[in-house]
Parts: sequence; C-alpha cells; structure tokens
Amino acid sequence: MPGDIEISQAATLEPIQQIAARVGIGAEGLEPYGRHIAKLSREGLARLADRPAGRLILVTAINPTAAGEGKTTTTIGLGDALNRIGRKTVVALREPSLGPVFGRKGGATGGGYAQVAPMDRINLHFTGDFHAISAAHNLLAAMVDNAIYWGNDRGLEARRVTWRRAVDMNDRALRQVAIGLGGTNGAVRETGFDITVASEVMAVLCLAEGPDDLAARLARIVVGRTREGVAVTAGDLEAAGAMAALLSEAVLPNLVQTLGGTPTLVHGGPFANIAHGCNSVTATRAALALGEFAVTEAGFGADLGAEKFLNIKCRSSGLAPSAAVIVATVRALKLQGGVAKDALGSEDVAAVRAGFVNLARHIENLHGFGLPVVVAINAFFSDTAEEQAAIVELCAAHGVEAHICTHWADGGAGAEGLAHAVAALADANADPGGALKLTYADDLPLEQKIRTVAQTLYRASDIALSAAAKKDLARFEAEGHGHLPVCMAKTPYSFTADEKVSGAPQGFILPLDSVRLSAGAGFVVALCGAVNTMPGLPRVPSAERIGLGPDGRITGLD
Amino acid sequence: MPGDIEISQAATLEPIQQIAARVGIGAEGLEPYGRHIAKLSREGLARLADRPAGRLILVTAINPTAAGEGKTTTTIGLGDALNRIGRKTVVALREPSLGPVFGRKGGATGGGYAQVAPMDRINLHFTGDFHAISAAHNLLAAMVDNAIYWGNDRGLEARRVTWRRAVDMNDRALRQVAIGLGGTNGAVRETGFDITVASEVMAVLCLAEGPDDLAARLARIVVGRTREGVAVTAGDLEAAGAMAALLSEAVLPNLVQTLGGTPTLVHGGPFANIAHGCNSVTATRAALALGEFAVTEAGFGADLGAEKFLNIKCRSSGLAPSAAVIVATVRALKLQGGVAKDALGSEDVAAVRAGFVNLARHIENLHGFGLPVVVAINAFFSDTAEEQAAIVELCAAHGVEAHICTHWADGGAGAEGLAHAVAALADANADPGGALKLTYADDLPLEQKIRTVAQTLYRASDIALSAAAKKDLARFEAEGHGHLPVCMAKTPYSFTADEKVSGAPQGFILPLDSVRLSAGAGFVVALCGAVNTMPGLPRVPSAERIGLGPDGRITGLD
Repeated sequence: MPGDIEISQAATLEPIQQIAARVGIGAEGLEPYGRHIAKLSREGLARLADRPAGRLILVTAINPTAAGEGKTTTTIGLGDALNRIGRKTVVALREPSLGPVFGRKGGATGGGYAQVAPMDRINLHFTGDFHAISAAHNLLAAMVDNAIYWGNDRGLEARRVTWRRAVDMNDRALRQVAIGLGGTNGAVRETGFDITVASEVMAVLCLAEGPDDLAARLARIVVGRTREGVAVTAGDLEAAGAMAALLSEAVLPNLVQTLGGTPTLVHGGPFANIAHGCNSVTATRAALALGEFAVTEAGFGADLGAEKFLNIKCRSSGLAPSAAVIVATVRALKLQGGVAKDALGSEDVAAVRAGFVNLARHIENLHGFGLPVVVAINAFFSDTAEEQAAIVELCAAHGVEAHICTHWADGGAGAEGLAHAVAALADANADPGGALKLTYADDLPLEQKIRTVAQTLYRASDIALSAAAKKDLARFEAEGHGHLPVCMAKTPYSFTADEKVSGAPQGFILPLDSVRLSAGAGFVVALCGAVNTMPGLPRVPSAERIGLGPDGRITGLD
Repeated sequence: MPGDIEISQAATLEPIQQIAARVGIGAEGLEPYGRHIAKLSREGLARLADRPAGRLILVTAINPTAAGEGKTTTTIGLGDALNRIGRKTVVALREPSLGPVFGRKGGATGGGYAQVAPMDRINLHFTGDFHAISAAHNLLAAMVDNAIYWGNDRGLEARRVTWRRAVDMNDRALRQVAIGLGGTNGAVRETGFDITVASEVMAVLCLAEGPDDLAARLARIVVGRTREGVAVTAGDLEAAGAMAALLSEAVLPNLVQTLGGTPTLVHGGPFANIAHGCNSVTATRAALALGEFAVTEAGFGADLGAEKFLNIKCRSSGLAPSAAVIVATVRALKLQGGVAKDALGSEDVAAVRAGFVNLARHIENLHGFGLPVVVAINAFFSDTAEEQAAIVELCAAHGVEAHICTHWADGGAGAEGLAHAVAALADANADPGGALKLTYADDLPLEQKIRTVAQTLYRASDIALSAAAKKDLARFEAEGHGHLPVCMAKTPYSFTADEKVSGAPQGFILPLDSVRLSAGAGFVVALCGAVNTMPGLPRVPSAERIGLGPDGRITGLD
C-alpha cells in the first residue's frame, strides 16, 4: 500500500465549502484557510447553539502498547462508516503537535484510507492554533519575568515561579534551563520549556465555553507564589486579556474532511497525562449540533483517556456519550498476554486469550460509567482468523459485541459492521445524561477523589501519598480548589504506575508522588511517578527525511 | 480622531477576492485566510512570472527619532494616492512582529486613515508566517543539540555552537540562558533566544527566489564549528528539508487591503540591523507584476534601510527602484536641529533649518545611488505653515520637490501631490536598472566593502576594525564568502555609531567591533557596537491594555 502522505496527496478533496454545506453551514459560517481547511466563524458557531444536539460516541482503547492500536484511524473509519449507512455523522479529533512529526511518532491524522486531509497541512501548522497557544503561554512567561525585573507589587518571588515556557517542538535541551543570565537581564532562575500540548493554556482552550469563560480561566492560572505562599495569577499580572486576544481565532474549531468525505472538526490537543487529552468542548458541541452522531476520541487507554473524558470534560460541560467503542488489536492483546514484541508475527491464540483480561477490565470500567460498549478489532495483515475469532467470542461472553474493522485498508466500508452496532447501542440509550455515572462527586475531598479513581478503575487497594502531595492537597483545599476534579498522570501502559505490569493487575498500592494545581484549566493533577513534558528527538529524527519538493509539495511525512 | 483599531474595525472592507480581482488575480490565484486576508497561491504566483514588471518606488526616511517619522503610513498613503490619480499601484510592506505589539511600540500596520486592514489580525499571528519561521529556526536548534547529545559525526563542538533559538516575543530573561541542565539532557551550554525578526531564517525567506533557492540557502546556514574551526551547516545536519517544509506556506505572499482599497502584499520582516530590513523579494516581484507601480519601504533611515535595500536586496534580485521617497517630519528635523523632545510643541523654524542637514545628506546619498528623489513631509497637527515651508524651500535649493502629506488624517487624498511627483520622476527614469549605482562591487574584499559604505554614505574618515573582526573577515574570505555583500548593524539614530550624534557629522572613525557570517541569507553582518536582538517589555507593557471582547473583537491594540 502507498504511504499515508501519498494516499492523502493523491486524494481528490472536495472544496471545504461543499463539506460544510453538507451539514448546513453556509459561507457566512466559515472562515476558509486555503481551499480544504476552514474555521467555523464566530457567527456560524453562535448559530449552532439553537440546533438540537446529536448523539455522542466516545472512541477509547485498551492500554496502549508499542504495537499501536489505531484509535484515531478507528474514529475516522467509524465516522465514514456511519455516513455510509445513512446516519449523518461528524468526527471530532485532536490537532497534531509539530514535535512528534519531526521526532519518531509521525503525524496524527490517521492512516491508510482512514485519514483526515490534507494531512501535510494539518500536521504542519494547520490554522496556527498551537502557535497561538505557545504565544499566549510565552507572553504570560515574559510578563512574569518582567514583573520580577521591574519589582512587582504583587510580591511574586523569583524562586517560587512555577510557570514555565512552551514550544511546539521536541527539544530535550530545553527541559531544564537557567534564564536571566548576563548580569542585567533580571533575576537568574531555573525553569524549563514544555511542549505546547502540555501547556495549561491548551487545557484552558479545550475546556472553555466562550470568550468570557476563556478570559476567566486564563486569569485564574497560577504562575507562582509570594514569599508567604500566596498564589499569584495571570489575572494579578493583567495578562489574561492579551492572552485571550492571542487566542481569538484559536478558539474557533477547524473543519476538514476525511478521505471518505466526512466533515471533521480537528481542534485542540492537550497532553493526556498532565492534562485531560481530549479535543475542545467547543468542537465537540459543534459536532453534536451538526451531526446525528458526533464521534470523538480520548487519549491513551480507557483507564486514563476515557476516565478523564468523563470525569473532567463531561463533568464541566454536561456532555454525555451515548455509547463507547473500545479499540483493540490482536497484536496488542498478544503483548498484554505476554508475547515478546519480536514474536508478534506468529499466530498465538492462547496469548490473545490471556491478554483479553486487559480488554475485559476496560469493558467493565466503562459499563461502570453507565456506558453501552462495543469493541472494534482494528485488523492488521498479520492477524489470523482464529485470533480475531477468539476476541469476538470472549467479548460475547462479556455481553459485548466485537467487530473486525478494516478501515485502514478499505476506508469506511471496512467499519460498517461496527457502525451498525454503535448506532443500535446509541439509539437504545434514551437518556445518556441520566445513565452516566461519574466516579466521584465534586464535594469529595481531593485525596479521596484520587483514591476512588485508583480503587474503582485501576483496582488498586490504596494510594500512597507523599508528604509533599498531602501538604499541597491540603493547601489547594484551603485555597478553595477542593471542588475541582482530579487529573491522573500515570503511565498509560498499565493500570498500575509501573509500565511493565500488563494485563489486569489488582490489589497494588498506587504511589502518588506529587500534585499540581491547574486552576485555569480547572483540575488538580495527580502525578504517579515522573512525567516528561518535553520529549527529545531520537538519534535519527524523522525531520531528516522530510522535505519540500520544487512543486511545493511536502515529502517524507508519515 | 478615533484610535487606529477603532478606525480599522469600523471600516467596511472589501472581500479579498474583490481586491485580488482588481489586479487580475482569480480564485485559483488565492488561498483565502478568512475573508479579508489571502495568500497568493503557488499557481497564482507562478502565473505572475509572465507579466511585465511595473516600476518600483522605494520609501525611506531621514534618521529616525523618538518623534516618529511615519514611513509605513506614507508608503500606504502614497499607494492609495497613486491609485486615486489613476495609476494602478500595489503596496508591499513588512509583517509586524508580535513582540512590539505587547511591548511599547504597538502594531506596524500604519495609522489613522493610512492603514492596512484588518489591523488586529495582521498584528496578531496574521497567516502564521512568523510562527513558521520560529518553528523552522527552533527545529534546527533542536537538531543541533540532538546531534551533540547522540554524538554527531560532523564533530560539531557544543562550545562552538552559534545558532541560538527564536521566539516572537519581547522576553528579556531569554537573552542569555544556560540549556541542557538536569544531568541527562545533553551538553550544558550557554546560548540565548532572539526575537524571530532577528532569525537568519527570516532573512533567508525574504531573499529566497523559490523552493530550490530556499532549501539551498537554508542548507548553507552555519550553526557552529568543529574543534578545528570547520563550519557545520544546517545541510550537514540534514535539517534544511524539514525547515523548508515548515516554510512551505510562509513563502507565499499575503494579500490584504489598505483602508483606501489598495491591494497590499505584507510579507516577511527581517530586523533592519543584523539583517536587511525589507519585505520579501517574492512579494516585491509580485507587486511589480500586479501594478503599474509597486510602492515598498525599507527599515530605519536611508543610511541603513535604503543602503541595504539597494546593496543587498536589489543586488541579489536584480530589482531597481525607479524613484525614492524620503519621509521627513517637522518634529524630527527639529530634533535633528537640536531641540529638546519636550519643546517640540513650539514653532522653531531655525531648528528645522538647522536639522535639514540630516535630510540633505540622505538626498545626496540617494542621488549617489542614481535614484531620483522626492521628499514627503508627513504632517503633524503641531506643525506650523512656516516650518513646513522651510523644508519645501530647502529641498528646492537641493533640486528636490517636497510635498506636505496629510494621509494620516485624510487617507490617500492627503498624498496626491506626492503621488504626482513620484509618478513624474519614475516615468522619466527610462532605465532604472542602468541608472542604479551600487556602492561596491561583489569582488571587493569584505573589509573594503565596509570601509566604502562608511566613507561614501556615512562620511566617516575610516573604520577601526577590532582584531577579532579582522580575523573573522579573513576566515570568511578563506571559506569562500568574500563575494557576499555586507550588512551594516549600527545605531539607526545617527550616521555615526553614537546615537547621540545628530545632523550630518563627518570625518569620524566608525568602530567595527565584530562581524558575523549569515551564509544562508547571503551577507556578512558588520556590527558597530552592541546590537540587542531580544527586546524587553517596559514597566507597564501594552499587553496589560489588550483584551478580547465578548463579541470576539480585539480591544486595546494601537
């Protein structure tokens, strides 16, 4: 099969106005960015408020493995398939970050014949949203150091600044830096850069409900503390207005198309560890207003991604999915079942059956949230019919349908079975808002919220809080942040905090090293182990293969 | 009069397609970015190659002062006025940088009724060109440190890296930083961040003639040296292709309109000190293909801006202006004549006459380049008729027309006299390419090029090279860069290197502290004194006044 960029560049795309017209958006509802990309205009977005909302479908996955599960391709393939079976559907995805494009991971626009297009533009700059977020983040950082330089009246201490800088690049050397050197450039202090997807501004943009809420959330961002420990915010530094101005276009969802012609909103992309890992509330709402179905995805596996989609995004917005899809692959279940990575090529039905415990745990958890579930088996060429059949059989034993999907090779036609199952489940869920059971109530103490997630969803026996984390949680509650949800930051590869523990472990102690307040985004981050918020480049980065042809075409993207 | 942003937001703009149609660009020639901004498409740009070129008008100025000269407003006003008198004209300007918008200086889209619009979008992000340049710059930086981290086979020495990082923000604390801290993040070394307009990538983009030349120039960028002193380039690190890919849209000129409806290409914006300070060659060529006249501006005063426009941009591209406009103001000439800044409000004809020596020197210099010259007196409310008349009279004595221009208050109608004079001069210049006399030949040694500029244009008696500069120039010549033009970096406020020396000094020694090779851009920078390539924010930055209204409108920009 040709590479992703060749498939994308060879596709005949429809003018974006035509894609928009299919869901009832006229010219006044669009701000075109080239011929195949548009933002929904502010007016267009305002008009959607009156439309009835469709049904929300959440695509999530088992614990990710090195083999790759294909959550984004399945989201796209399912959207195309729903449209093929006559159910008007809009897909809502996260925007790719530039960093991984030049590193190892490549783009984030799906693959094969389940892609959003134009993949080169979407993967490189797109409509500039992430650059706007970096600029807003770094303006606040510049205003923090400027306040210290001129002697600020808020009492912000140079040594107690927690706000770092952001760049949308994999740049290991910027993880930890000393700034203000040179003698006359202000206070010398240690800080660092995070990749833009890890910026709290990204999470704010994705959770904000309109310009006023955006400015209010930005103003609540804590940048550091005074000597006495009093929080200093972006609002205290008068930075929130200018940050909001920098985000004035970035808050508008981007409309593109899948290779199957499905209207797709690609908007926002917060990290799935120290943030909640979903596209923007604005885009999800717009997709619901535009389609009978809106299909969206959450980051990582269901233990982290779906949990935060529900306990953070749905809690703050009032959204509720009508059904969930769990993506699994034969290869990943074999890895969960203990097969070595270099032995994945040989048939091993026993390993698939052994690894199924991981999928079963995620099914149980999502059922616990009150969600109807269907499993998508994302087919690979190396799968055998017996391996796939084992998954279908084990799912049936758990009362769940599993569908073999070939959207990567066949586009939407390869996911029609899944689409029928999803539509049936969603149609039968008369009151998804009423059925949804969040894991904890707002008024539970922060420590107890973390414990409840760990015990209910991870099956830990308890959590082990560090002294520092305990102290910080108490402080956050004293400062009035006790009502916030918690954002779990742990390895995505295991239910535990140890990435090597696969399957469905239970009865372990989850260590909780530290906590961080994201008062603007509106959650308290609970860190189980170190989280790297600035990736590095590999020895031979993808960047070395990427180029610009004499005809202006990008080459070497994957 | 209302503020600039109020005037801009109250204006009824034409759809950008209509503006484009006026100069013969159809839908296929445009990539719209919203309704009032578009990029010329690659196809559209290719088609322009066959059109006959119009006449180029260069707008420059006397040495700038704190009073402001209004070079951009005059460029816009002249463009509007030429269209009003029936001469089809396209304006070509530089793009604004985000840094000054949030600092002290404000936007860079003209002012009053001589503005390009929409000013809020153009001043904030625009079409993302500067973000793309920052990304390309920082990708190279990440690849530099990554090569060192993994042990590169080019022998690049951590201590000899000269490539810094870039951000489009005024951020004093990033001027000098230590990176790679933390023990496992690579080589700890000192470096810093420049504002994006100071990036060599910006200068490369502005001088490149198409995708192949762009990639070739990027590949020539020197990032550091080996222990033995051998230059290591972006090409050696295999970074140039990915950098070019990041710039694939940024190389396309942006089309907007003036408030008078004049099609305007706003594209690129390199620093006028350590770079050449003009919009892109691509945009200037496009403007010439689209209009009977193309009006463009150069940075700072004529000693730096026009000199580099001619000796760098025109030399490499073969462009040649048909006429030059020197912008002067009563207030600035008074300052040149020794009046204190707080006394500018009172009439002082004698000071205007005394300050005229500065304008006279610039007239002589431009005549020396073989350019017909006209002076634009950019009127201020505080000017008196006698003061303005003195300038007209003194210009006449130098054989040059001077026109009082009120475009700031009146739009293009206020610059019609200037427009008639400019058109007459340009019409009479039958062979501008033949008439143009560059200051030095390509084959003159680098040191001699610098001396020739200093003696011919600044009227220095000689230059005083530091030992380091002498050694570096010899090395650049030994490495085969002796044919490059020189890019003078000195204070814009004086013909000398001392910003306090106003008027028309002569017979001084110009100190030359250091030189830098910009092998990608294609010039050798000669630094007379320290140049700050990362501005700081003032005690009360403009950012504190900027905001986003509930209707999505930006407020507080000026």
